[in-house]
Amino acid sequence: MHDRQAPQNGEVALCRFVADLQFADIPPRVIQFTKGLLIDWLGSTLAGKGAPQVEAIERFAHAMGPQDGPSTIVTSRRKTSPYFAAMVNAAASHVVEQDDVHNGSVFHPATVIFPAVLAVAEAEGKSGRDILTAAIAGYEVGIRIGEFLGRSHYQVFHTTGTAGTLAAAMAVGKLLGLDAITLNHALGSAGTQAAGLWEFLRDAADSKQLHTAKAASDGLMAAYLARDGFRGATRILEGKQGLAAGMSRDADPSRLTDGLGTRWATEETSFKWHAACRHTHPAADALQLLMQRENLRADDIAEVTCHVHQAAIDVLGPVTDPKTVHQAKFSMGTVLGLIAVHGVADLDAFERYALTDPRVAAFRSKVRMVRDDEVDALYPKRWVGKLTATSTLGRTLEARVDEPKGDPGNTLTPDEIEAKAIRLAQFRDGASADEMRSWITRVCALDDPNAPTALLPL
Amino acid sequence: MHDRQAPQNGEVALCRFVADLQFADIPPRVIQFTKGLLIDWLGSTLAGKGAPQVEAIERFAHAMGPQDGPSTIVTSRRKTSPYFAAMVNAAASHVVEQDDVHNGSVFHPATVIFPAVLAVAEAEGKSGRDILTAAIAGYEVGIRIGEFLGRSHYQVFHTTGTAGTLAAAMAVGKLLGLDAITLNHALGSAGTQAAGLWEFLRDAADSKQLHTAKAASDGLMAAYLARDGFRGATRILEGKQGLAAGMSRDADPSRLTDGLGTRWATEETSFKWHAACRHTHPAADALQLLMQRENLRADDIAEVTCHVHQAAIDVLGPVTDPKTVHQAKFSMGTVLGLIAVHGVADLDAFERYALTDPRVAAFRSKVRMVRDDEVDALYPKRWVGKLTATSTLGRTLEARVDEPKGDPGNTLTPDEIEAKAIRLAQFRDGASADEMRSWITRVCALDDPNAPTALLPL
Repeated sequence: MHDRQAPQNGEVALCRFVADLQFADIPPRVIQFTKGLLIDWLGSTLAGKGAPQVEAIERFAHAMGPQDGPSTIVTSRRKTSPYFAAMVNAAASHVVEQDDVHNGSVFHPATVIFPAVLAVAEAEGKSGRDILTAAIAGYEVGIRIGEFLGRSHYQVFHTTGTAGTLAAAMAVGKLLGLDAITLNHALGSAGTQAAGLWEFLRDAADSKQLHTAKAASDGLMAAYLARDGFRGATRILEGKQGLAAGMSRDADPSRLTDGLGTRWATEETSFKWHAACRHTHPAADALQLLMQRENLRADDIAEVTCHVHQAAIDVLGPVTDPKTVHQAKFSMGTVLGLIAVHGVADLDAFERYALTDPRVAAFRSKVRMVRDDEVDALYPKRWVGKLTATSTLGRTLEARVDEPKGDPGNTLTPDEIEAKAIRLAQFRDGASADEMRSWITRVCALDDPNAPTALLPL
Repeated sequence: MHDRQAPQNGEVALCRFVADLQFADIPPRVIQFTKGLLIDWLGSTLAGKGAPQVEAIERFAHAMGPQDGPSTIVTSRRKTSPYFAAMVNAAASHVVEQDDVHNGSVFHPATVIFPAVLAVAEAEGKSGRDILTAAIAGYEVGIRIGEFLGRSHYQVFHTTGTAGTLAAAMAVGKLLGLDAITLNHALGSAGTQAAGLWEFLRDAADSKQLHTAKAASDGLMAAYLARDGFRGATRILEGKQGLAAGMSRDADPSRLTDGLGTRWATEETSFKWHAACRHTHPAADALQLLMQRENLRADDIAEVTCHVHQAAIDVLGPVTDPKTVHQAKFSMGTVLGLIAVHGVADLDAFERYALTDPRVAAFRSKVRMVRDDEVDALYPKRWVGKLTATSTLGRTLEARVDEPKGDPGNTLTPDEIEAKAIRLAQFRDGASADEMRSWITRVCALDDPNAPTALLPL
């Protein structure tokens, strides 16, 4: 089946892997894990209901797209074409900052892959096994491309927007049954559309949702165009004028094929517990540990120093005085303030306290970040929470968390995933608890060839 | 009207310029020149009819968009939403490599700006003066952003895809009547979508049309979202994690505001004469001059050395053995071969001879490019054609062209523009000569407030 004369390169290896991937090749534990990721994604998407950014993108889809179609917009339950369903659902699933993240690639896979896969599956009548296989193909490829692009890329680019476009293209390409050569064209057309800059964080702008919306829909477009004979660059990742040449200074081609087919990167994905940027989670967990261990209240703490990896400073540093709830999710001081004052930094806590509680604001002013050599050296493979606090009595206190809650070694239990998804579904009345439980049941049966229904329509 | 407290920066200056721009402020000669650009664009678009890349994108638009709408796809005369009309028309207008180019920014403005402007004008019932003003706003901004991003950007990125997204957003934003602050949001949302890599050239892939398609439609989306309250990064160009930070090493912020309101960059735009990449034109003109002056035939020439700027090598260098007519437009040897053997490198010559004529192939093997310090230093402001040839009798011959045909100092006459547009319209039966003449008449009357019709529908 493989052309042995073809050059060995990362693009070809990834496309062959995706073309060859069969449901039966995937270990059952990875399938089970992926169902948890999908449940977590559904909750995250439903929680995006009513967010102004999401509604603006849906209005655009309604104005520019068809008034009906085969694919479901999850938050509004409206139907449209796969392209616009992918676009709106991707925007919705990234807005409350509860969707999953892969540490090593600093990439949020669910928010770009599931919207594209589910929209196409609904339109093309694909099975639950097809959905899971395509999504896992997207995770495996997207994570490796994020790792390949490296830390220099993430300094300026939102990897979920860039690598996410290629991940969505490969997932949709798998679902459409493209062969390796056609997938390579899809990869090229996706990579040449890859975009997304961090600059918006300084302004509390809405670009983060635009990035995921466009990654999902642009990737979908790349796969459909490839199926229709549209040709893309074959070396879009490693080529002399490709993605790494233009947008990375430390790209590592060996990461593209690292353990392909034996290492299942999908199951390295972290679930978010706190409703904030993942870069805040290690310190948040460390603070929680410290306060419990020392039996402290917020007022007992005079100052907090977070010993962080450089990327945390790059992403969170610009946010000094958050103006919106979304921006507050990128404020280390706000997240620690919520933990210290209210014990949690979940969706409700953000809505109720992040911008308005003077105790949270007071705590925010006590928090600073400094780059830590050890933490930075372990990143991005490990996201270590290392924290020094001074009590108002002058005591110096330390805490450390090696794997924040939700990381692979400290992952959520099925019950925690379900409970989180139900909370998220109810957050903005995206779905009732009973509806969410029924969808969870459907996700759990997704690989059963005798299950009567696919996931969507809802 | 202006907030004097706001920081002075390139983004604010550009957005204020666009918001304030009035038709009456624009010198009549610039209005006249822009009509020529629009006629040239219409011809280029019609010549894209039937191109496989364009048809694939139109099929995608048909599958994912509405089956009807207010905006016209020029090649097929079908109607759809402004988003998809912009997308397809932008793809069509860039495929035969006859659309305009601005030297200093190495940016093709027409192919991304007119599709977006005309699609929206048709949907929103805008006047001919609105169209011209909006298009000129797009040219002025897009050209300056291309100049700002610099030569290092163009080494890897197709500036028409990247700067083009912002140009389309600003043109559409002007047409929608956005104020300066809202335009700044549109600029941010456009910049964070900006993409387009040169890697495709190595493969004769179809990405060049995808770049223009997406630049026009993504830019349009950015402007519509901004009108709807969607916020973008305010410093997307110059910010620490903005476009220049991620995608340029020699960005020059002074270029963003260079002569804004007094220097009309629009009228610096070059018309293409040969149907090939602009980087081949200086040498093509020099060869034509040399052969006429010395009364040479193709067989009289043993070898040709083109003394070029570095960007010509970056873009044309990868194309050594063209496999498609489109790729042949990026082959210096093929272009010079057509000139030498057939006297012209127009659309017909490319179709008939570029890939199949052994005399053209033989001439191609005689041509090489070398970087020339003087030519490179003048670039991109001037595109000098400097050429050394050796005759089969051993004579060394030289020729030089300081401004290739179509450049501002050597621009096309109105008759040449019309004749070219009619040729292009007829190339694939996009329109008859009579139809094209009637549209030319309508373009010429576009600024007449009493003219009965807008440009589209056709």
